[in-house]
Amino acid sequence: MRGRPAIMARRTEFQRIAEVFAPLAARASGAFGLTDDAAVIPVPDGHDLVVTKDAIVAGVHYLPDDPADLVARKLMRVNLSDLAAMGARPVGVLTACAFPKGLDEAWIDGFAAGLAADVDAFDCPVLGGDTVSTSGPAVFSLTALGALPKGQALRRAGAQAGDLLVMSGTLGDGALGLLAAQGLLEGASEDLAYLADRYRVPRPRLKLGCALLGRAHAGQDISDGLLQDAGHLCACSGLSVDIHLADLPLSLATRRAVAREPQLLERVVGGGDDYELLFAWPAAEVAALASLASDDVPLTVIGRFGEGPGRVRLLDADGVDVPVTMHGWSHG
Amino acid sequence: MRGRPAIMARRTEFQRIAEVFAPLAARASGAFGLTDDAAVIPVPDGHDLVVTKDAIVAGVHYLPDDPADLVARKLMRVNLSDLAAMGARPVGVLTACAFPKGLDEAWIDGFAAGLAADVDAFDCPVLGGDTVSTSGPAVFSLTALGALPKGQALRRAGAQAGDLLVMSGTLGDGALGLLAAQGLLEGASEDLAYLADRYRVPRPRLKLGCALLGRAHAGQDISDGLLQDAGHLCACSGLSVDIHLADLPLSLATRRAVAREPQLLERVVGGGDDYELLFAWPAAEVAALASLASDDVPLTVIGRFGEGPGRVRLLDADGVDVPVTMHGWSHG
Repeated sequence: MRGRPAIMARRTEFQRIAEVFAPLAARASGAFGLTDDAAVIPVPDGHDLVVTKDAIVAGVHYLPDDPADLVARKLMRVNLSDLAAMGARPVGVLTACAFPKGLDEAWIDGFAAGLAADVDAFDCPVLGGDTVSTSGPAVFSLTALGALPKGQALRRAGAQAGDLLVMSGTLGDGALGLLAAQGLLEGASEDLAYLADRYRVPRPRLKLGCALLGRAHAGQDISDGLLQDAGHLCACSGLSVDIHLADLPLSLATRRAVAREPQLLERVVGGGDDYELLFAWPAAEVAALASLASDDVPLTVIGRFGEGPGRVRLLDADGVDVPVTMHGWSHG
Repeated sequence: MRGRPAIMARRTEFQRIAEVFAPLAARASGAFGLTDDAAVIPVPDGHDLVVTKDAIVAGVHYLPDDPADLVARKLMRVNLSDLAAMGARPVGVLTACAFPKGLDEAWIDGFAAGLAADVDAFDCPVLGGDTVSTSGPAVFSLTALGALPKGQALRRAGAQAGDLLVMSGTLGDGALGLLAAQGLLEGASEDLAYLADRYRVPRPRLKLGCALLGRAHAGQDISDGLLQDAGHLCACSGLSVDIHLADLPLSLATRRAVAREPQLLERVVGGGDDYELLFAWPAAEVAALASLASDDVPLTVIGRFGEGPGRVRLLDADGVDVPVTMHGWSHG
C-alpha cells in the first residue's frame, strides 16, 4: 500500500482501508488484512453462525457532538448485544461507514480508535466492510457475526406459562442517560455522568447470554424499551406477562432522578437503549439464577408469564394496572 | 404484527419490517421471519462461511433517478460478485437501509421488489438488517454471506509466474454504461440501452466462481477497473503482469463507442463496474478453459503473469507500453 504524503489532507478510500481499518483485522487470519473481496470465517463443526446488523445515523441515534470513539463503541456494542441475546460468542464484525464529505480525518481516527478498543475488549476483529462518502449526515452500519453450538440459539419464542421474566442489570439508565447527555436532566453531576455513560457505552451481556443457552426458555435484549421488548417475547411465545413495577431494578442515579421527577418513570419503562438481557426462566429453577448473577450484572425477577396472547401489564404494589403512554422507542 | 391504516402515509419501522422485508426472509428458517435479534445460519460441516459488505450512496454510486428496483438489484449483485470472486455460493444477505426522511413509500416498495426479484433469482434470502431515517441522501449497505468447502477460498494471493490472466465476459460495458445512463454517450439507442443495463444490473459470475475452486491460482472481480484490479492480484501475489490491449474482450456496443471516440478506451481499461471475474490460470491447463466458458460468459486470456513485484503493463500489438492516465476508480 502506498504511503500518504503529509500534505494530503484527506485519505483516499484505499489509504483509509490500509491505514485505519486493516490494523483492526490483523488478528483475523480469514480477513486477509482486508485485501480480498470477502473474508473467510472458519466455523467450527457442530456450530451455527449467528448474524445481526444494525445501523446508526448522526443526529438520530447519537448526538452530533458525541465523542467519535464512543460512537464507534456504541455501534459495536448494540450489535454485540444482539449476539448476547441469542447466546452467541462474537466471531467478528464488518463495518460500512458513510462519512460526510469534508469530515475531519481526526474524527475518523477517533472512530477507528474506539473500534480498536472494542475489537480488543471483545476479541472481535473487523473482518471487512466498506467506506463511502455522503453529502448528508454520517451513516454507519455494522454486521456482527457470532457462533454457538448447533441448534442452541436462544429465541424470542419458547417462553412457557409460569416462567419468570428476568432481566439483567438496571432499567432506564439508557433512556435517562440520553436526557443527561442532551443537558435535559437535573441531578448531581456524578449521577448525570453515570447515566450519560450508560447511554453512550452499552455493556453487551455476552457472558450471561452464553450461560443462558439450554437453560432459559426465551430471551432478547432490551433495546426498544422494556414494555415493547417484553411484548415481543409475548407475541413470539403466544403468552402474556405481568410485570411488577416495584420489582424493577433501578440504579441509584435513576432512583434519584425519578424521585425528583416522577414522570420520568414512563421513560424508564418505555425508553430504549438499556441493552440488558430479558429472558424467560423456568420458575422451578429460580435458585439457579444466583449462580448466573454477579456484582456487576445482577439478575432480577420482574414478572411472570401467563396464558393468553400478547398482553403486557405493568402492575403496582396493589396489583392495579399502571397506565403507561410511552410504550417504547421505534428507532426511525 | 399490526395492520397499517390506509390513511397512514408512512410506515413505522416495525410495519416496514413486517410488510416489506419479512416476506423476503420467508424461505430462510434461521431468519425467524425477522422477529428475533439475530439470524441463525446453519453452516454445513466441512464448510467455511464467506462474508462481504458493500455500501452505496444516492448520487455517488447510483443516479438519483435510477429505478428503485434496479438500485436494490445492483446493491445485491455487487456483493454477490464478491462472493463469486471467492468461489462461494450465496447463503443469504442482510440489508441496512437509511432512507431519506419523506421518501415516497412507493420508492421503498420498488426497492423491496427489486430485492425480492434477486432473492428469487439467486436463491438468497434476506436474513436480517435494519432500516433508519437520514436527513441526507439514501445510504444502503448489504452484507452477503456465502459458503464454500473448507480452506478452498479463491484468494487474490497465489498467482504464479507464467500463469495466464483470464477474464470473463466483456470489459468496459459498466464504465460506458454509466456514461450512457447519464446521457453523456453518443451511439445507437440499442447500444446505449445495452450499456446502461450492464451498468445498472451486474451479473455476478457465481457459477464460474464455484467452478474455479481448486483450479485457478488466484482471482477477484473487476469492480475498480481492470488495471487497478490486476494490480491487486499482482500486489497480493508478488508478481507483475503484462496485458495485451488487442486481446481485451469488448462487446459490440463498446467497440462501436470506442471506434467513434477512441479516448473512451481509457475508461474501458480503467473504469469500474464490470463485475466480471479476473483470475490466474495455470498455462498448462489452457485447454480446460473452454469447458468453463459459455455463450453467455465467454472467457478470454488477456495477459500473463511474470516475476517482479506489482507492475501492470498494458501493451499494444507491437509490445509497446500503452500510457493510461486513468488507472481506476476509487469509490469515494
